[in-house]
Amino acid sequence: MAPVKNGRHLFNEIPTGYPEPGKTTIYDDSETIDLEKALLNGGFLVKTLVVSIEPVILGRMRDQSIKSPIPPFHVGQPLNNYGVGKVLRSENSTFKPGDHIYGMLPFQEYFVAQDPKRYKLLENKEGLSWSVYIGVCGMPGQTAYYGWKEWSSAKKGEVLFVTAASGPVGSTVVQLAKADGCKVIASAGSDEKVAFVSSIGADVAFNYKSVPTRKVLEKEGPIDIYWDNVGGEMLEAAIAAAGTFARFIECGMISQYNTQDPYPLENLFNIVTKQLKIYGFIVTSLHAKYEAQFYREIPCRVAAGEIKYKEDIHCV
Amino acid sequence: MAPVKNGRHLFNEIPTGYPEPGKTTIYDDSETIDLEKALLNGGFLVKTLVVSIEPVILGRMRDQSIKSPIPPFHVGQPLNNYGVGKVLRSENSTFKPGDHIYGMLPFQEYFVAQDPKRYKLLENKEGLSWSVYIGVCGMPGQTAYYGWKEWSSAKKGEVLFVTAASGPVGSTVVQLAKADGCKVIASAGSDEKVAFVSSIGADVAFNYKSVPTRKVLEKEGPIDIYWDNVGGEMLEAAIAAAGTFARFIECGMISQYNTQDPYPLENLFNIVTKQLKIYGFIVTSLHAKYEAQFYREIPCRVAAGEIKYKEDIHCV
Repeated sequence: MAPVKNGRHLFNEIPTGYPEPGKTTIYDDSETIDLEKALLNGGFLVKTLVVSIEPVILGRMRDQSIKSPIPPFHVGQPLNNYGVGKVLRSENSTFKPGDHIYGMLPFQEYFVAQDPKRYKLLENKEGLSWSVYIGVCGMPGQTAYYGWKEWSSAKKGEVLFVTAASGPVGSTVVQLAKADGCKVIASAGSDEKVAFVSSIGADVAFNYKSVPTRKVLEKEGPIDIYWDNVGGEMLEAAIAAAGTFARFIECGMISQYNTQDPYPLENLFNIVTKQLKIYGFIVTSLHAKYEAQFYREIPCRVAAGEIKYKEDIHCV
Repeated sequence: MAPVKNGRHLFNEIPTGYPEPGKTTIYDDSETIDLEKALLNGGFLVKTLVVSIEPVILGRMRDQSIKSPIPPFHVGQPLNNYGVGKVLRSENSTFKPGDHIYGMLPFQEYFVAQDPKRYKLLENKEGLSWSVYIGVCGMPGQTAYYGWKEWSSAKKGEVLFVTAASGPVGSTVVQLAKADGCKVIASAGSDEKVAFVSSIGADVAFNYKSVPTRKVLEKEGPIDIYWDNVGGEMLEAAIAAAGTFARFIECGMISQYNTQDPYPLENLFNIVTKQLKIYGFIVTSLHAKYEAQFYREIPCRVAAGEIKYKEDIHCV
């Protein structure tokens, strides 16, 4: 078989604001690969099926000198992130042709991998579409599940507030909280997103661009749990509306990632007076504790329709 | 015996800034009490020996309408706070004359109490001075001990930063941390205080008014544990200097109590990226869990000279 094109999305330039396809990243199809003859050297050849586009990618588009627990991208190299691939050929006993694997994949159509420990075999007995394994059954779902299990201490009747509630993490949190008997207050940034959040069970869903968050929380709170995906002003509003002993699960602060002008919080004294507990976390830290439980439980519940999701798929 | 004067410190006026003796509080000795004949109605007559003056008192000098877990004072009534008293007469079987009791005492020379459950009998087998029981062996020592036991997760060689380190809470934290094998960085607001903090074992003690906190932490950190008594700019510096998984024990934010202009923190995004855990607490919430252990352990260690303290005593 003749070599085929092996398209790649390369990191091209550190963005000063938001990333711009064609500038900060470029699509390159100058390389080819012979799928039958490419040397495996004891590894396995993978066809990339889906990769996930997430806010964390922007944080990795940085200068090498800036330290962070998440490694930076290298200019001229493909981006990489969680994805699902199909094994085409293998010289490694862990994976056989036809297997589907999950892990950090390059944004590249085909690649040869050496280390099977860096990938997880997806059994997918439920027959879900593979893209689900980078969403609600992948890292975003794990983020929601791990954080909720570890820190919510949710009791029936307690009140959760979750921001960015229509996203893959937020929408999973909404449904885990409802399953635990919580009242869920959820915010999102468009009426369409709000409709989706309502459809998956949020008791109070609102568009934070048209309704003041503080007013909603004053009426519907006090809150026992805040799941933060946003930070800044929303975090301040949640602190203002928190009840004594409220738990804050700090999953992300999207409003603060891409700004030279971070929002200055002024009500932190409430951390002491309200005896708040605030848990910052990155999903990988809880992987060892919850991964097996997650794959046992969540794909089943998704297949059964107990946990709903919405995908935003782009084909290239 | 003729009636004697029964002096009281009354709450007189809500302060707009700092309290002013003679204005926001007044000393009143117009009342008298007959120590032999005063009716006890099944209660017990107590002579107040020592009461504690603490920052929390200012928070209680507020308008009745402002909610807080700690109740406000009432204008025209004596202040009250933790203190030690001696039982002079008793009609209750729990306490007998000569007993020393600890609890919330009015700022008043003599008072009749009814509810023995509100006071703790101090055995003081160690023969410590009674004032120690409102300091290192009282609420401030409990604050340090409970918070440290509950949230520090201290491991040998870890780095603690503690602010207001010469105070009764801070200085106890310094010594608990040293006993657990931590490196202790401690700040205080005068050279005299710094000398005291060094004398009780802090590895790095500095006057935050003359040395920039951020510089000290950059050199001596990263920090694994921050014990916060101060909030504001110091909290921001601690977040900047925190290592991954650092624990923040939020005991107080003295810099933020008495200001119309709270310090705006701008680096909270690190809570997520550094996976910080932040624990706000008030000592009473951990009382049930740690009180017995505290009284078994701390007075002994104080009597043995293992835990040192400094007192600031005013006689009236």
